[in-house]
Order: sequence, then C-alpha cells, then structure tokens
Amino acid sequence: MELSQVPSDRIIIVGAGIIGLGIGWRLARAGRDVLIFDRDRAGQAASHASAGMLTPLAEVRHEEEALLKLGLKSLERFPEFVGQLESESGLSVGYRPDGVLLVGVTRDDIEYLSFRYDYQRDLGLPVEWLSGTQAREREPQLSPRVGAAVWCPGDQQVDNRLLVKALREAFLKAGGSLVESTPVEAIDVAHERIRGIVAGDKSYRAATIILAAGCWSCLIPGLPGPAMPPVRPVRGQILRLQMTEDCTLKTIVWYNRAASSAVAYLCPKDGGHLVLGATSEEMGFDDSLTAGGIFELLRAAWEVVPGIYDLPIIETAAGLRPGSRDDAPILGKTPIHGLIMATGHYRKGILLAPVTADAIAELVLTGNTHEDIRPFGIDRFAA
Amino acid sequence: MELSQVPSDRIIIVGAGIIGLGIGWRLARAGRDVLIFDRDRAGQAASHASAGMLTPLAEVRHEEEALLKLGLKSLERFPEFVGQLESESGLSVGYRPDGVLLVGVTRDDIEYLSFRYDYQRDLGLPVEWLSGTQAREREPQLSPRVGAAVWCPGDQQVDNRLLVKALREAFLKAGGSLVESTPVEAIDVAHERIRGIVAGDKSYRAATIILAAGCWSCLIPGLPGPAMPPVRPVRGQILRLQMTEDCTLKTIVWYNRAASSAVAYLCPKDGGHLVLGATSEEMGFDDSLTAGGIFELLRAAWEVVPGIYDLPIIETAAGLRPGSRDDAPILGKTPIHGLIMATGHYRKGILLAPVTADAIAELVLTGNTHEDIRPFGIDRFAA
Repeated sequence: MELSQVPSDRIIIVGAGIIGLGIGWRLARAGRDVLIFDRDRAGQAASHASAGMLTPLAEVRHEEEALLKLGLKSLERFPEFVGQLESESGLSVGYRPDGVLLVGVTRDDIEYLSFRYDYQRDLGLPVEWLSGTQAREREPQLSPRVGAAVWCPGDQQVDNRLLVKALREAFLKAGGSLVESTPVEAIDVAHERIRGIVAGDKSYRAATIILAAGCWSCLIPGLPGPAMPPVRPVRGQILRLQMTEDCTLKTIVWYNRAASSAVAYLCPKDGGHLVLGATSEEMGFDDSLTAGGIFELLRAAWEVVPGIYDLPIIETAAGLRPGSRDDAPILGKTPIHGLIMATGHYRKGILLAPVTADAIAELVLTGNTHEDIRPFGIDRFAA
Repeated sequence: MELSQVPSDRIIIVGAGIIGLGIGWRLARAGRDVLIFDRDRAGQAASHASAGMLTPLAEVRHEEEALLKLGLKSLERFPEFVGQLESESGLSVGYRPDGVLLVGVTRDDIEYLSFRYDYQRDLGLPVEWLSGTQAREREPQLSPRVGAAVWCPGDQQVDNRLLVKALREAFLKAGGSLVESTPVEAIDVAHERIRGIVAGDKSYRAATIILAAGCWSCLIPGLPGPAMPPVRPVRGQILRLQMTEDCTLKTIVWYNRAASSAVAYLCPKDGGHLVLGATSEEMGFDDSLTAGGIFELLRAAWEVVPGIYDLPIIETAAGLRPGSRDDAPILGKTPIHGLIMATGHYRKGILLAPVTADAIAELVLTGNTHEDIRPFGIDRFAA
C-alpha cells in the first residue's frame, strides 16, 4: 500500500524523542493508526543527552508553581507508567527512587540554598535541611567543604536511554510505525485545518498532527504564526564517568555553584555510570562541546565530590533542549484544527513524559483538554 | 614466498611509531630489507596522542644537559629531515618554527620561571625574559594575569599525525614492509644472539632486531634481564580544540602551574586545531581519560588564555609515553648480539626522531655507535 493513500484518520507525530514516542505508544495501544517521523534515529537528540532526572522538588523555582504541580503529577504516575512500559516492552528502564541532595559550599551557595529551602517548605514539599555532617552521613562521598544541604527524598531518576529504547519497542509492538532519518519538510495546512505532511519528497495525509520535535519544532515550514511554537535550543553539555569501588555515589548530588552560576548534578546509574550534567547555554543550534562547558562541570562536581578526580571519562555529549519563552512546555490544541503541540519541555522532558503522553492521548481520543495541561496552551503566548 | 624463509639479513623493527618508522625509512632507503611489526595500526599510540612539540629550549631541566644536547642536534636536523620526507612521501607534515612562550601568573610561577631562565642563560640558550605586557605583544590571546614570560624563539613544532602518515608512506615507497595489528609474541635469542621473532603464530628469522615498541618494549617475552629496557608507561591526556576567529594563537604557550604542579601547553596547528596537553601520570597501562586530568588541563589553559573558554572540543585522547628511569631514551647496542634499542623517548619522541633514525641506521649499517647517542646506552642502568 502506498503510504500516501492511507485514510486520513491516521495520526502523525513529528519527533521520536521521549515525548513523541510516549504519546505514540499511548495512542497505538488505544488502537489508533500512528506514524512517527524523526529527522534522526529515535531519541538521539535531547532525550539522549539528558541525565534522566525526575526531580521536581530539587528543581522548583519561584513563580513556577503550575509547572511544579505538573511535574509532581507526572512523578506520581511514573511507577505505573514504568511498570506498564517494562511489561509491554520486555525492557528495564533503570527507574530508581534515589532522592536528591542539594548541596552548598560557600556562604553564597548556602544563602541561596536556604532561600530555596524556605520556598520549598512554603509549598509544603517534604524536604529536609541538613548540616554538612548530616549530609555526609547520607552520602559519604561529599567533600568536607560541603557546609549544608537540602534533602529531597521524593525525587527520583530513570535511565533516559533505556527509556527511549523501551518506548520505541513498546510503540512498535503496539502496532505503531516509525520512520527514522526522515525530516518532515512541510506541514500541509489549508483553511486552518491540517491536511498532512511532506517528508522524504512524499506526501502523507493525516487529520491529526502532533508536533513533538523539540527545539526543531519551530523550523518546520508550513505553520502560520499563531501555530508556530516559540521554542529555541538551549545547549546542555554532559559527561559520563565510570564509578569505581573507591567512588560510588548512593544518591543524586546537585550543586548550584553561586560563584560561577554553574549547575552540576552527579547522577549515579545502574551499571556504574555517573552522569555529570549539565550546562544551559543559549548558543542557537550549535551543539558543540566546549572547553568552558566541560571545565565548569568538572570544577563544580570536583568541589563537592572530590573522589570523581580519578574516575575515567566514558563519554562527553551535548544536546539541544527545547526551551520556551517561560521555560514551561507547550501542550494541547492550536489555532489550526488537528494540530496539537507537545514541545518546549526544556529540562523536564523525561519527568513530564507520562503526564504529556496521557493528556495528549486523551485530547486526541476524546477531544478533551485535561486540566493538568490547561495552563500550558500555546495561546498563553498570544497576548 | 613464505615470510619465515627469508634470509636472515632482514632487519625487523618492533613498533611502528615515529621512532620505528623513522629508523625503518632510513634503512629501507639505504637498500636494506626491513620489516616492521606493530601491535596496532602504525603510529596509533604515543605518536598519535602527542602534540608534536619540538621544544628543547622550553623543556630543559637541571641535570639534563646531555639530553638537551641530543634534542638540539635533532632540532637542527629537522628542516632537512622534513624536506626529504615531504619530497619522498609527497605529504606535508605541518612543520612550523613558531617559538614558545613560557608564561607565569602567580608569584610561585614566576619564581620558578626565573630560576629556569637563569639556567637556560647559563647554558647559553637564546631565550629572552619578557614582562607580561611584552608577552601579550607577542601573543595577544594571553590573559592580563600573565605577569612574566620567557620567549624561546628557537623552539618549533610539527604535526605529529601528519609525520606518522608521511613516514609510513615514505617507508613503504622505499620498499619497506609493514605488518600492522600483529603483536610480536616473542623474541628468539640463543647464545646471546638474535635469531628472530614470533608474531601471529609465525616465526620470522632476522639477525638484527630493533626494539622501538615504546612502553610495551618491556613486555615482549624472550629478553634476558640485562637486555630488558627499563621503560614504563607515563599517561598523557590531551584535548584538541577548534580555534575561531576570536581566538587563534600565533605561538605555542606553555604554562607550568605551580599551585597544582600541572603543565599545560597550547599548541596551534595548521588548519585551526589547538592541541592542549598534557598530563604526566604514572598509572601503569591504564590509558583512560579522567575527570581530574581533563579538568587540570582546562583550568591551567583557561587561566593563561581565557579565550579558549568558548572553543569547541574536537577530540579528547590519552596515550602512554615510554618513560625510562632517568627520563632519557635508551639507544644503541645491547648485551644481545643483533638486538638494538630505540625506546624510552618519554615526552621527546617526536623531537628525537631524526637523530634517533640517523644514529640507529648508522649503527645497523656500519656497526658504529655515533657519539650523539653514546650517553644513552642501556648499559648505563647496569650498575
């Protein structure tokens, strides 16, 4: 059958990252005919360069209560999401309820930690202030220079690369179709209604298109202004180290280094890798590793966990996260009938995968925009 | 023809790095039958991870006058060596007479610089003391924090990887034979006389064997104690950055950072790469990159050339240099008749390639040990 002749109730998803695959899996297992396109292989962009942190408590910032709520909802769903996914794909995804230690060294660091701690407490989050000594009891690898910490026991992690693999497998097993290494060249819109896409010089008809192409979502031709998501690439550089018997971390350690505005988290994975991330740099679509980026990560990490000094570097990588104007995702209907947004997840794509998958699937299947995602429509940028 | 049946006047060289290839080229163009074995592909070990610095002035240390003299001899021969090599191979090797700026930042750095400068002057080397301002006139990329420098105008550089390529080509064109990815499993010695080697489960007869296998020279079975070179691996980690219009260096910048005993040199290459090296670590045969190694290089380099911060990292690499007990090479005859040493070049393998190639070729062809290499025989370790 020539693909271009398939019936128009097919759903096309642009982008096979965590978000696109998650939505596709939900829709395929609901019996819908789903076709996902990716410019590269599935999950090779931001989903690959991520650290897989599920850490809404540690990451909460002032004026982001709605985003916190969405993150907590998604975190709550993770055990069920992972259970179902592992059972249907037959693959493990390295889900670990580790908790996060936010740590501070200098007076500036600890002032900031305290300021955020008060805010976390105001929000009713179950966090705990620790002295340096108490923090080292929890994570003996911490430097003697760590003077205080905030323990965020609810935060968790998953292996983002295993998650991609499992989602891809589950999506295909559920009957979905995946076209890799094929960029979508145009979205075909007529009379404010989706007609299909063009990819690899071929036309594909569809009445529903879900745009989940991360920071590339704004580059696909054919969308009128109000349906164009205001996303931009925010580069993240990471390293993977190999932990040894002498230096194995039990929990995620997170350091906001006030002196250089650097952020470093150290995230131990099953199998002994230690993911060390991540910069946040506005450099357009340049995904180079840089001397300064790697230097800042290593300096900050070494200051709080000196034992990393002798650990082998297994990998260095850089990825482009999809940032939006307010750092929150863009989810739901657009002014174009049949065009649905699921992009702009910035640093929270892995965390928000379950809630995004469920809400977008519900929107496609029932037409209902779940209250979870209502604050995140593209219309918030219209004014 | 079965290789094991060739006549015994064949010369076998163990190791196809810069040293083995250089000697092989000299002997093959003199009409001799030369066969080189390498455990890997040619030049993939220390010769690959090197920065190609030809810098005897900048590197001279107390009590190493004999080594300095050998280095200066070799440097003198470089123009002719390179001219002949480029003409015979048809390949360029990126030879550049740049000069080196030794720089200091802290008072400790500058004390050390001054101590070494006095020694360089005592030796009659043409070096020049510069203020920070004078140093920045020579290399505008230097940090305002650089307080003094020593200009070593005679020092030079070559592209070590191009040099390997050209030597390999010239050696083959001169009629030499190269067997790659074939470790030598044993050296066959009887009655204190070389009989041949075993490699890839095959025996090869030869009356002359030249051991040029870098830090692996001590691992090849079959050598009696007094003919076993006391070499050990000294790990060096390096990075390659891509220079940009905003940050291009004109000269080699070298920083001995007193506070951390780190050494960082920044060596600009034709084509815009900037090689940033190198650690010196005694870690056995472990050739991992490490968090601490890369961190120290980036920190030291960034302190003296802040513009590297935004440069893309093109490559990270680690190699094992062959260190000897006194950091000088091991060259010439051994107690085993027919066994010749050309190993232990430590950090100076590229610099010493011409003088090593000429002297070892002369030894093989005429039996004469040239006065240049007399101080560097293996017998100096016998006492």
